[in-house]
Amino acid sequence: MKEIVNCAAYSAGHRTADVELNDIHEILKDPSQFVWIGLYEPSEELLQRVQNEFGLHDLAVEDAHRAHQRPKIELYGDSLFIVLRTVQMTPDCHIQFGETHFFVGSNFIVVVRHGSSVPYTDVRVRCETMPELLGKGQGFVLYAIMDFIVDMYFPVVQELEVALENIEDKVFKENPSRKTTEQIYQLKKDLLEVKRAVSPLIDICNRLMRFDIKYISPETQPYFRDIYDHALRINEMVDNTRELLNTALDANFSLISISQNDTSRKFAGWAAIIAVPTMVAGFYGMNFKFMPELEWAYGYPIVVGLTFIICVTVYYFFRRSGWL
Amino acid sequence: MKEIVNCAAYSAGHRTADVELNDIHEILKDPSQFVWIGLYEPSEELLQRVQNEFGLHDLAVEDAHRAHQRPKIELYGDSLFIVLRTVQMTPDCHIQFGETHFFVGSNFIVVVRHGSSVPYTDVRVRCETMPELLGKGQGFVLYAIMDFIVDMYFPVVQELEVALENIEDKVFKENPSRKTTEQIYQLKKDLLEVKRAVSPLIDICNRLMRFDIKYISPETQPYFRDIYDHALRINEMVDNTRELLNTALDANFSLISISQNDTSRKFAGWAAIIAVPTMVAGFYGMNFKFMPELEWAYGYPIVVGLTFIICVTVYYFFRRSGWL
Amino acid sequence: MKEIVNCAAYSAGHRTADVELNDIHEILKDPSQFVWIGLYEPSEELLQRVQNEFGLHDLAVEDAHRAHQRPKIELYGDSLFIVLRTVQMTPDCHIQFGETHFFVGSNFIVVVRHGSSVPYTDVRVRCETMPELLGKGQGFVLYAIMDFIVDMYFPVVQELEVALENIEDKVFKENPSRKTTEQIYQLKKDLLEVKRAVSPLIDICNRLMRFDIKYISPETQPYFRDIYDHALRINEMVDNTRELLNTALDANFSLISISQNDTSRKFAGWAAIIAVPTMVAGFYGMNFKFMPELEWAYGYPIVVGLTFIICVTVYYFFRRSGWL
Amino acid sequence: MKEIVNCAAYSAGHRTADVELNDIHEILKDPSQFVWIGLYEPSEELLQRVQNEFGLHDLAVEDAHRAHQRPKIELYGDSLFIVLRTVQMTPDCHIQFGETHFFVGSNFIVVVRHGSSVPYTDVRVRCETMPELLGKGQGFVLYAIMDFIVDMYFPVVQELEVALENIEDKVFKENPSRKTTEQIYQLKKDLLEVKRAVSPLIDICNRLMRFDIKYISPETQPYFRDIYDHALRINEMVDNTRELLNTALDANFSLISISQNDTSRKFAGWAAIIAVPTMVAGFYGMNFKFMPELEWAYGYPIVVGLTFIICVTVYYFFRRSGWL
Amino acid sequence: MKEIVNCAAYSAGHRTADVELNDIHEILKDPSQFVWIGLYEPSEELLQRVQNEFGLHDLAVEDAHRAHQRPKIELYGDSLFIVLRTVQMTPDCHIQFGETHFFVGSNFIVVVRHGSSVPYTDVRVRCETMPELLGKGQGFVLYAIMDFIVDMYFPVVQELEVALENIEDKVFKENPSRKTTEQIYQLKKDLLEVKRAVSPLIDICNRLMRFDIKYISPETQPYFRDIYDHALRINEMVDNTRELLNTALDANFSLISISQNDTSRKFAGWAAIIAVPTMVAGFYGMNFKFMPELEWAYGYPIVVGLTFIICVTVYYFFRRSGWL
Repeated sequence: MKEIVNCAAYSAGHRTADVELNDIHEILKDPSQFVWIGLYEPSEELLQRVQNEFGLHDLAVEDAHRAHQRPKIELYGDSLFIVLRTVQMTPDCHIQFGETHFFVGSNFIVVVRHGSSVPYTDVRVRCETMPELLGKGQGFVLYAIMDFIVDMYFPVVQELEVALENIEDKVFKENPSRKTTEQIYQLKKDLLEVKRAVSPLIDICNRLMRFDIKYISPETQPYFRDIYDHALRINEMVDNTRELLNTALDANFSLISISQNDTSRKFAGWAAIIAVPTMVAGFYGMNFKFMPELEWAYGYPIVVGLTFIICVTVYYFFRRSGWL
Repeated sequence: MKEIVNCAAYSAGHRTADVELNDIHEILKDPSQFVWIGLYEPSEELLQRVQNEFGLHDLAVEDAHRAHQRPKIELYGDSLFIVLRTVQMTPDCHIQFGETHFFVGSNFIVVVRHGSSVPYTDVRVRCETMPELLGKGQGFVLYAIMDFIVDMYFPVVQELEVALENIEDKVFKENPSRKTTEQIYQLKKDLLEVKRAVSPLIDICNRLMRFDIKYISPETQPYFRDIYDHALRINEMVDNTRELLNTALDANFSLISISQNDTSRKFAGWAAIIAVPTMVAGFYGMNFKFMPELEWAYGYPIVVGLTFIICVTVYYFFRRSGWL
Repeated sequence: MKEIVNCAAYSAGHRTADVELNDIHEILKDPSQFVWIGLYEPSEELLQRVQNEFGLHDLAVEDAHRAHQRPKIELYGDSLFIVLRTVQMTPDCHIQFGETHFFVGSNFIVVVRHGSSVPYTDVRVRCETMPELLGKGQGFVLYAIMDFIVDMYFPVVQELEVALENIEDKVFKENPSRKTTEQIYQLKKDLLEVKRAVSPLIDICNRLMRFDIKYISPETQPYFRDIYDHALRINEMVDNTRELLNTALDANFSLISISQNDTSRKFAGWAAIIAVPTMVAGFYGMNFKFMPELEWAYGYPIVVGLTFIICVTVYYFFRRSGWL
Repeated sequence: MKEIVNCAAYSAGHRTADVELNDIHEILKDPSQFVWIGLYEPSEELLQRVQNEFGLHDLAVEDAHRAHQRPKIELYGDSLFIVLRTVQMTPDCHIQFGETHFFVGSNFIVVVRHGSSVPYTDVRVRCETMPELLGKGQGFVLYAIMDFIVDMYFPVVQELEVALENIEDKVFKENPSRKTTEQIYQLKKDLLEVKRAVSPLIDICNRLMRFDIKYISPETQPYFRDIYDHALRINEMVDNTRELLNTALDANFSLISISQNDTSRKFAGWAAIIAVPTMVAGFYGMNFKFMPELEWAYGYPIVVGLTFIICVTVYYFFRRSGWL
Repeated sequence: MKEIVNCAAYSAGHRTADVELNDIHEILKDPSQFVWIGLYEPSEELLQRVQNEFGLHDLAVEDAHRAHQRPKIELYGDSLFIVLRTVQMTPDCHIQFGETHFFVGSNFIVVVRHGSSVPYTDVRVRCETMPELLGKGQGFVLYAIMDFIVDMYFPVVQELEVALENIEDKVFKENPSRKTTEQIYQLKKDLLEVKRAVSPLIDICNRLMRFDIKYISPETQPYFRDIYDHALRINEMVDNTRELLNTALDANFSLISISQNDTSRKFAGWAAIIAVPTMVAGFYGMNFKFMPELEWAYGYPIVVGLTFIICVTVYYFFRRSGWL
């Protein structure tokens, strides 16, 4: 994939030109236009060129190169620097995180993608079909991409909720197993990671929608409230799933103990049943000279029969008291 | 059920006219009147017409159509947008949630119901019998419906408290069972959902009763304090039930262990009692040439008798020490 | 018990007259006097008369009639409305809650008691013996009754602390039992209820002592600090007991497991000891033609003796290793 | 011990005179002097005389007499009232709490000790050797004693940390025992009490070092930052120990279960080994007419030998799989 | 190692001279220069000389001498005093903490190292290669060393994350063991200590980057945001690891119980299998006169054969139901 995914100038909501990197500073002189450039894992050299064209702050560019940042929003001088974590489900149901960085300035927005994530070409296309909204400037572009990123979290969190339901089924319907415990642990781990990616979003959106931030027009601010709401909901879903998961872990534990108890009882019950014939047999195996029963003609069948009857009685007794 | 449940104009607390949707903008011109319209799961098309008549904000209307929102309060330009979650107990004791959205403007209130919920016709009727209160404007209508919604939570939470009491009875009076554990889990889940629906209410009421909000007259504000109080109480009841439920889960677990312990002790006790005759029988089953007891005329009954006495002694010993 | 417990006018700290309900508005005209009226579970009709005499707010009166409120403080227009929960220990050691509502206005204080609670006649008598303090107005009356209510919590919380000590004794000194677990649960429940009644008190006192509240003279404010302090202490005692109780629950659980472990070890130890003679007896019960030991004259006593010695050895071995 | 431990006037950092209680109001007239009086569990009568001499507030004096207060700082009119809890280790390692109350006014400081605590004579002596610091007034005296009190917490908390280490040793190195569990509980109890005594200190110091408090000169304020720091550290040490203790409780519990598991496995292993000869012996104890092995000359030794070999094999099998 | 590691004067980002301690006050007179002095565990005497040269506050110097401080930032008069905890991994994977104290004044920075920590010579060298940054004054030196200290935490925390992964492997892949439990406890302990060292850093950086602090130029403030970010991340990593560790402890516990359950079932299964031949043998060991089977020629092989078949059947039965 090429490093510069797309680079265009927009005026009054319409794409006016595809721009070469070197010509950007020319276009920036015209305040009625803004430049939207999308990069994918840019090399240090490319980033430096971008920095020079747009006049970005050293520390922000350093961050944009290094990736592995926490989601955050920062003002370096005049330009806004935002880091978000993107999320994606691999076909084999693993969660993959990426990062997207934004530089928003007087009339430009630079979007830098890192790691596995869906490209924002679709967002660009959709924006270009809504010139009245795109005309609100780079603030709307920021909104459109952030909205896209946050919406990607919903399927992931729903997948995690499904995973919880699977665990519930296993915990309450099947025998306790090592595997269920491991799945609980794994789900907890995933939840923690999603939480870590989402929860700073709440604060970021809050600042975008409440505070006066240059280059983000007041009429775009209500839109960020929308993202804020989504972030809150995702956060709540994660917290909810986490709390239920903890309870599931406890319930699982109780059920293991109940299962253990059942085992012990069953064992005790059968041991008692088997103890009867063993004891009887032992008694009539004694070598006393004078044991009248041994001489009886029907001694053997009587004893075997009685033993059997006692065993059956004991069995039903345990059945009724719930031990078997 | 039709989409437009009711649509009427009110003046000085009295219903002045039933209004057609298309005539609304006419009526809105008269500041001494206000329009109260009730919708049920409106189609996108209807919502758009309503939006045009009242001049509602795009984002709010989008929310009102999509449903599945978090309870929230928002100001879009001049008009207030409120989302609440309604609750209902199905006849077979399941909790069902619905949603109600409010748009409150200069002289109108639009109420949009989603999902399973009791219609607000009763509230309208009751309001119309209190013209002096209804005369306070759309703010009072908002209060009346919110109060109705919040009051619906009380029977649900009481049902959950009853569920907790049932669980307590099962935990402390019956043997530990898989089913009790599952019920605990289920109750926890219900509590979490109710909590999620109720807790944002506290903040919503707080803002309605404290901040200066256009179109809600200061004399209606104390009424929201009433709802605030109810929301606080429901919230507290839920938290309380939750905390007790956690303790019940722990107690349940302790009791499972105690029960397990009892099983082991009982088993050990009976095993000891049975070990006596088994051992004795084994001894007199040995084939030594010279075992004087075997020759005795009363050897057999004496041994059997002694064994029985020892067993009874052991039994009483275990009884006294609490193992049987 | 009659509904109007007491109704008197005070001037400069001295009781000036017993007042009929209908004459109150006359007295209220004289700003140098204030009326202190005590009601017990008043009927709706009586409350309405009181409301008319004092000019109380609808919502507050509604609350005062319904009872089952959360402790709270509210300003309705000019008059202050306070709800407190009172507590009492029944002779058989159950906690009983009641409610007391206060209306404090320009020159009156209305005290409404609900449910089981000690009457405030003693407080009135004590106040009347301190005219210089009672002269500070209805604010001091409010303080005196609140102080009395809060002081009633101390014996209750101390009773709960004693209950915890009993549980500790049972957990650490006796065998784990179902009953102890149930007592732990019950104590937790009581603590939660006391907590719920006490913790809003902190906020109420805080507002009474810090904010400027009409009809409460600044010189009475430090007195509320005293109640604030007591509420804090009760709250702290409850939290402390709760935390210890949680630890006791955990400790109880550990001890159940240790006890289970002891049972298993003891059982295993004795099973091993009994296995010795059983095995020996089995061996000499075999029917081989040529088993020299069987022919020996002292074979039997020797084998029995040796078996006994082995058993004793095994016993001491297990003793030393702590299994028996 | 006498009630008035010490009573002296200081001027410019030097002790100018020992003062009789009745002469204090004379000295207080001279603003260049301040009086430092130390009391030990004063009688109500003495306290009243002190109150009159210094003009202290009723509620504060009442508190000072009653003791059993929470640590707090309060302003009654002009004078500052502070309650602290002191701590001490008895020779047999029990924690003993005492209380010290301070009244700080325009030119006096009254220090009232309650319960077991080291007297502050040493602090006085040390202060008198630093006239340049003592010259900063009663604020410095307050600092000096508070510092002394807070420093007394360090050895106590260190003792508790040692107790935790002992518990760790017992949990991880020894067999689980009822006593360890009881010690964990006891330590938790001690930690809670120390926490309760220390944590209000943070707020007290914070107010002393940040807010403008009359009679405490701005140049003494940085000194309270020092105490603040110590209080924070003690608090942190207690929290840390508490968190570790909770983990130790959990770990203890896991180890009890592992130990239980070991017992079960060992028992099962030995039971299997013993089952072999028992079964064999049983078989050759059968009375069939035609059992060729019984007739063999070496049948007995061969069977015994084979049985022994099987037992040893089984033993090594269990050894390898970790059951024995 | 000598006490004074390095002492130099800088002007406009360039080292101008190595300075003797006694000449410092001369250099401090020139506001265009600043002095950077590095000490290692200085003696009290040396610290006093440094204090005199730079005019440091008594309390700060006392702290700097005593070490064992909490990380903190304080303003004593004009000069800033900062305490940080440094961290290091010993070759045998133990965490070692040290302390570094900073005094920042009008034109000096004093850096005092205590305990095991890497010297800051490298930082000095690196700074001297960036004169344009070093020219921003002592604020940049503070940043450079703080950044170096915070970066040292990353490998340590990563080591702890690896330790968690090891524990996960052991918990989920191996049999539960006492050692794993002990490792969990040890890791918890390490995490708590790192947390204690890192979390105050967030507040320190926050104050350095937000508030107006003398001697730290506004253009160096964004750099502290960088450290702030790192501290946040380390803190988050630690919290995450801690939460996972708690879950691992719970999971471990569940697995111990499952393992216990397996043991019981296996034991019960085998006991049942062995009970069959034992019972059969017992029966045919009875001494009844008339037991036809005993007389049969093929009685013995038939019985042995049948017994064997039953045992195998029982075995497969248990296999299928998951007990063996």
